[in-house]
Amino acid sequence: MNTKIPAPDPCGVPLEYLLAFINEDAPFGDVTSELVLPDIERRARIVARQNGIVSGLSEAERLFSHYNVDATVLRADGETVDRGDLLISLEGPVKAILLVERTALNIIGRMSGISTRTRQIINVATAKGARCRIAATRKTAPGLRILDKKAVRLGGGELHRFSLSDGILIKDNHLAVVSLEEAVGAARRMSAYRKIEVEVESADAAVTAAKVGADIILFDNMEPGEVEDALSALTRLGLRNGRLIEISGSVNEENIGDYALPGVDIISVGALTHSVRNFDVSLEMMKE
Amino acid sequence: MNTKIPAPDPCGVPLEYLLAFINEDAPFGDVTSELVLPDIERRARIVARQNGIVSGLSEAERLFSHYNVDATVLRADGETVDRGDLLISLEGPVKAILLVERTALNIIGRMSGISTRTRQIINVATAKGARCRIAATRKTAPGLRILDKKAVRLGGGELHRFSLSDGILIKDNHLAVVSLEEAVGAARRMSAYRKIEVEVESADAAVTAAKVGADIILFDNMEPGEVEDALSALTRLGLRNGRLIEISGSVNEENIGDYALPGVDIISVGALTHSVRNFDVSLEMMKE
Amino acid sequence: MNTKIPAPDPCGVPLEYLLAFINEDAPFGDVTSELVLPDIERRARIVARQNGIVSGLSEAERLFSHYNVDATVLRADGETVDRGDLLISLEGPVKAILLVERTALNIIGRMSGISTRTRQIINVATAKGARCRIAATRKTAPGLRILDKKAVRLGGGELHRFSLSDGILIKDNHLAVVSLEEAVGAARRMSAYRKIEVEVESADAAVTAAKVGADIILFDNMEPGEVEDALSALTRLGLRNGRLIEISGSVNEENIGDYALPGVDIISVGALTHSVRNFDVSLEMMKE
Amino acid sequence: MNTKIPAPDPCGVPLEYLLAFINEDAPFGDVTSELVLPDIERRARIVARQNGIVSGLSEAERLFSHYNVDATVLRADGETVDRGDLLISLEGPVKAILLVERTALNIIGRMSGISTRTRQIINVATAKGARCRIAATRKTAPGLRILDKKAVRLGGGELHRFSLSDGILIKDNHLAVVSLEEAVGAARRMSAYRKIEVEVESADAAVTAAKVGADIILFDNMEPGEVEDALSALTRLGLRNGRLIEISGSVNEENIGDYALPGVDIISVGALTHSVRNFDVSLEMMKE
Amino acid sequence: MNTKIPAPDPCGVPLEYLLAFINEDAPFGDVTSELVLPDIERRARIVARQNGIVSGLSEAERLFSHYNVDATVLRADGETVDRGDLLISLEGPVKAILLVERTALNIIGRMSGISTRTRQIINVATAKGARCRIAATRKTAPGLRILDKKAVRLGGGELHRFSLSDGILIKDNHLAVVSLEEAVGAARRMSAYRKIEVEVESADAAVTAAKVGADIILFDNMEPGEVEDALSALTRLGLRNGRLIEISGSVNEENIGDYALPGVDIISVGALTHSVRNFDVSLEMMKE
Amino acid sequence: MNTKIPAPDPCGVPLEYLLAFINEDAPFGDVTSELVLPDIERRARIVARQNGIVSGLSEAERLFSHYNVDATVLRADGETVDRGDLLISLEGPVKAILLVERTALNIIGRMSGISTRTRQIINVATAKGARCRIAATRKTAPGLRILDKKAVRLGGGELHRFSLSDGILIKDNHLAVVSLEEAVGAARRMSAYRKIEVEVESADAAVTAAKVGADIILFDNMEPGEVEDALSALTRLGLRNGRLIEISGSVNEENIGDYALPGVDIISVGALTHSVRNFDVSLEMMKE
Repeated sequence: MNTKIPAPDPCGVPLEYLLAFINEDAPFGDVTSELVLPDIERRARIVARQNGIVSGLSEAERLFSHYNVDATVLRADGETVDRGDLLISLEGPVKAILLVERTALNIIGRMSGISTRTRQIINVATAKGARCRIAATRKTAPGLRILDKKAVRLGGGELHRFSLSDGILIKDNHLAVVSLEEAVGAARRMSAYRKIEVEVESADAAVTAAKVGADIILFDNMEPGEVEDALSALTRLGLRNGRLIEISGSVNEENIGDYALPGVDIISVGALTHSVRNFDVSLEMMKE
Repeated sequence: MNTKIPAPDPCGVPLEYLLAFINEDAPFGDVTSELVLPDIERRARIVARQNGIVSGLSEAERLFSHYNVDATVLRADGETVDRGDLLISLEGPVKAILLVERTALNIIGRMSGISTRTRQIINVATAKGARCRIAATRKTAPGLRILDKKAVRLGGGELHRFSLSDGILIKDNHLAVVSLEEAVGAARRMSAYRKIEVEVESADAAVTAAKVGADIILFDNMEPGEVEDALSALTRLGLRNGRLIEISGSVNEENIGDYALPGVDIISVGALTHSVRNFDVSLEMMKE
Repeated sequence: MNTKIPAPDPCGVPLEYLLAFINEDAPFGDVTSELVLPDIERRARIVARQNGIVSGLSEAERLFSHYNVDATVLRADGETVDRGDLLISLEGPVKAILLVERTALNIIGRMSGISTRTRQIINVATAKGARCRIAATRKTAPGLRILDKKAVRLGGGELHRFSLSDGILIKDNHLAVVSLEEAVGAARRMSAYRKIEVEVESADAAVTAAKVGADIILFDNMEPGEVEDALSALTRLGLRNGRLIEISGSVNEENIGDYALPGVDIISVGALTHSVRNFDVSLEMMKE
Repeated sequence: MNTKIPAPDPCGVPLEYLLAFINEDAPFGDVTSELVLPDIERRARIVARQNGIVSGLSEAERLFSHYNVDATVLRADGETVDRGDLLISLEGPVKAILLVERTALNIIGRMSGISTRTRQIINVATAKGARCRIAATRKTAPGLRILDKKAVRLGGGELHRFSLSDGILIKDNHLAVVSLEEAVGAARRMSAYRKIEVEVESADAAVTAAKVGADIILFDNMEPGEVEDALSALTRLGLRNGRLIEISGSVNEENIGDYALPGVDIISVGALTHSVRNFDVSLEMMKE
Repeated sequence: MNTKIPAPDPCGVPLEYLLAFINEDAPFGDVTSELVLPDIERRARIVARQNGIVSGLSEAERLFSHYNVDATVLRADGETVDRGDLLISLEGPVKAILLVERTALNIIGRMSGISTRTRQIINVATAKGARCRIAATRKTAPGLRILDKKAVRLGGGELHRFSLSDGILIKDNHLAVVSLEEAVGAARRMSAYRKIEVEVESADAAVTAAKVGADIILFDNMEPGEVEDALSALTRLGLRNGRLIEISGSVNEENIGDYALPGVDIISVGALTHSVRNFDVSLEMMKE
Repeated sequence: MNTKIPAPDPCGVPLEYLLAFINEDAPFGDVTSELVLPDIERRARIVARQNGIVSGLSEAERLFSHYNVDATVLRADGETVDRGDLLISLEGPVKAILLVERTALNIIGRMSGISTRTRQIINVATAKGARCRIAATRKTAPGLRILDKKAVRLGGGELHRFSLSDGILIKDNHLAVVSLEEAVGAARRMSAYRKIEVEVESADAAVTAAKVGADIILFDNMEPGEVEDALSALTRLGLRNGRLIEISGSVNEENIGDYALPGVDIISVGALTHSVRNFDVSLEMMKE
């Protein structure tokens, strides 16, 4: 057997990041395999146990390959799969396959769960005529942002900010300390390069934000009717030009259609990553 | 203001582990706060937005304290709270409060979500007369096992294995390579100290496992009726004495009552940690 | 002596990051101090040996404090200082002061060198009537980006991208692979949230970039006359509205005035961080 | 394409050290490449844009190879190159080439800048008849000592101390606490193995240091005439035998000739590493 | 020469763990090799200098292979070897061989020392008719538990607890705070899954521990006669059934025979890992 | 109780280094304490169980203090103690005391074992009239060099090289590749700063080494008589002046007297750190 090490994904996660998960699951090795298994090689396969959008396969491949298991990924990350579909076929040392098994399934399960739900919400929105992008937020599992965001992208979603370092977003908690005018003014003086986004909760605040130069207006926790009124006010005052409109706040499959209004550019959905339903997937060792 | 650093929790997570989450959320600092906020101190508070069992408060406290925010935890981890309850009151530099905000809320949201669901499932099982322990599995979010397991414990659940290093569990994938007799025999020869658990899918296998000396028998993906038959067979053959019985496989709120049979010691529920519904919680900055 | 630990800077660097520098300078401790010095406390001071803009003082303070040296920072980071000015006064164990000495001076020396040069270039540009922001690039010392960028900001500069993760910049090396139209089109489809910047080397390319929807046009390695022609072309075609113009490519103190043209929003200067002249600073131990 | 992984340099830096720089430049991946580029392979090349001594090529090679880019290094580290010379030819995934590009250029730029200046200063000194070694100090960029020192060595310089752990150097700040006699005495009692170096600022102190047994005398911030007087005094008193003489303190290209006196063994130049002028180098993607 | 990278041992240590030891031994590279050796390849061999049980060979192999040295392991870890036996033959860059030499020998020396002593003690116990398992404790060298425990296993010993996370052991220091009944009761309520072990120092305490449900009784620092009395008491009271008996406390080669009593299941020997006698092993470079 | 955090030892180990040992011993916390102990505070004490030189107390103190246990160190590191002596008194949370217990005792046990043996060997050598320094080698436990070397120093030993980066030592394995003349010549050309040590196995080789300029001659595995002959030859040829003589190779308590010859400066003893006998020490929890 001639294992080929797959190239690290240049847009992906470092191998060290993934290996830390193996170390979490086996800080002193796998005592069961060590005691009960011989040093032989076997074939195994990873199979989908539900329909959905699969992701995390390339991460699983890299982990298995690191332990000299020959992993053949049979479906692309981001692809639609059906219950029973074969996702990865494996061949290598049984102890290595079982060492990686749970970590690989946990990664595929979480990421595919996120990709699947992202696609479902996009489908619902699209069916309602939405022309906007569906985005994730920073409400990810601690330490898993790079995987959670990648899963959203593979499901068709927009990435939004990765972190506090890569976007200016002035929220209610900032505005409890400084006025909207001061905040946007300070940001504009110091940052020609970055877009300035302001969170508002009313049409009036939206108009103020637009007047002082916000590049993106984030309507937070507003009713669809309130959003429509605010959009009208901005249009009436000639403040829409080149400005992005984003909606956030408890948007889900049920109500996203109501927010998919003309003029809305982005709808952010925290639940995509903060309330994940695991995608069901399993590993089957071949008997010979 | 005189900040007292809380003692690290001897049974808890190292501070470095928590700080890595801050670094994920701000690899180059918080550009918004840096540009728009003055260096002043304020009060803020973290509030429950739903009913449930709260956890992650001590982790949040340590993060805020590390950044010289005076954090007063008002409810104990593991306690029942109601929507609107004040959980933590904060006082310190606004920039520090906002740097930690999202990470703290993500930790409390995930952990309390797990604790709340654990308690709900225990309540369902108890109402059905169950006398067994409800346990989590290793189906945790990668990298978050210590927090996920702690949240299960605070919800009243059993910890089960932390990792492949701390328990012998012979599963179907081992038994595709070696026979049950060989596996248990090898484990017994090498390990007097650890319990030996064997996963079975039939009454026959359960009897075999008991005969060769398994300490725990794990009934995986069996119907309640099959479980009852297997328990009867074990009893009939005098193989129950001192042996633990565990149930696993797609157990949830709906069907747990059917499995809460006399003679069952542990029911493991992967969904406790693999499909988490975020607990709703928010941080409010005081205006002065 | 009652040492107060300064709060971590919420917009700053983690202490662990700074301690790694101490570990680099003393992987097995400081053999000289260990062998020749008694365990006594002394006062010491850090003094500027040239005029300029000082920075890195808060990083030095945190390092000294970590080793129980009482550090009083006497000048603010970003402030103008003169040769001979006292920057930090210290009191604590002599061994601790000398352990941290070189690392602290290396940090202050590099950061102040960057801040000082940033201010000088801004002053030159301003004197030539520039109304644009002066920005650093990613040409930082490997591993030191957070400190290098902070020093630029303290000198009055613009931060620009921190990393490949936080801004879309389509450069000549991308355009050797895909056409400008394809590249901008793909970016727009996938990213409503982020600004799209395109690097061009001619007026024609600038017009194309604007037509397909670039938010920022980066004029790279163009002569001032070429820049003026390109700006005229954009204006003539009604393509300037809301679009940022950035200049880069071997800009320095000599030629920045020529690029400080009306309509230019940002001038990036790689030399701010890739060719640093150390700011001269020293530590003097008091005799008693 | 058959990528060969180059052997780690046994005298060089661990790969993990270099990969941390990639992680700094792309904590969440390269969003531009991810959005605008296809998954294809291309050729590219790294070219010198100035004359000088090149270094950092083996570090760049290892980074590219790690990402499955076939890197052929065409010039040896430490070799003299001319503007326009091809340094490395590359072939591999375009996304991988662009992920590594800036980090590789930053490493080559800094290291070659240091090697080039080291060689220039050595050439100046040699032209003035110096027979001594030119050494770097610990005034390196924080975290980059191993690369900075390696670049000095490749330029022909002497390494001197790597850290506080590997040499005894008694400086003015030690002598503000203990007397020269006590310090050298204590060091001699405890350390037969290590050389003992003492920093002096006068001929008298040099004589004292020699009398109490210093192995190296470091003349710090002394005028050339003062150095000559001190050397004469040592010779006159029969204290030169087997003792090394080192010069330091603001030595540069202008004044090094004045210090290249007979009897001087080492001249240390902090500016070699604390004030680096980047070596100009670029990466060009081939169109096909 | 075609180096094959050996698969990571699924039950073994991560490569990063081993590489940290190389970094400890060469934080800035190997200055001797760098200065005095050419870049050539040579053959070398690692040879046993005493009789015993060898281990650590696979760890050494992985380190050499990482540095592109072709390492052929000639004896299995856990095998008996004689003085003069060839253990590993090497071929590769001399600088790489010498970089790894000391670290590899230190690992083999410590691990083989542990395996050898483990086997010796087992042999002594077996000769005295013992039917119990010999176990290591947590008295390992800090940071080396995974290697120390592996060496015990390769010598034929039992692993016992790896850490405080993977077994419940109620010791005298717990019982200074809570009563035995409370402690065992609390553990039983919270943990159906884990065995509960209780340390006792008298027959009475052993009986109490058995009555309240301890799964393992650890006789600590008791004389052989006291152990016999306690075992009789337990048998007499019908408390032996299914319960494990462990002995600990200053057991060594001299007295282990006295403790190898019928009914004893495990004897733990801290000295196996806390007082290690290095196994003598050396590396010889071939002259050509 | 008012816990004072002790200052990090400027010549000592970083706290992070010590905390990694706690993490090794409790990757998921301490399950026993968590389940059976209340959250109360208690007093405890660490007591010597044998005579010897104690060390590692300051490392233990820092670990306990980190977990908010008030630790009072009652004996200085390096001091002579007797069986029964109280070393550290503790007061704080019982769970914290027990979390740190084993790690602290393992550190004190290993370090004091090394310090005690170092002192014993020095005493033996001194009694035989030796005037040389006793040094440790690099034969330390992997990852523990900084602690092992510190323990040697506290026992009165010489530190010798910390690593391959901080001393030039040309050994037999180098001389299998290059001639002694070439090796010393190359080292002298490149390194004015560092001492050059050469390992020899005969009087002839010693004379050659001295002639080509070795600063230290290391007599490896030579009989005392051979050493005397070699010293005579060096003296006769006028090659002793300023040159250090070191002895190594299986020196121990039995034979060190034979090597303590006039003219020998250093005797290195690998066994000081490669074959450590644990110092017996225990922790006792107070009943109230």
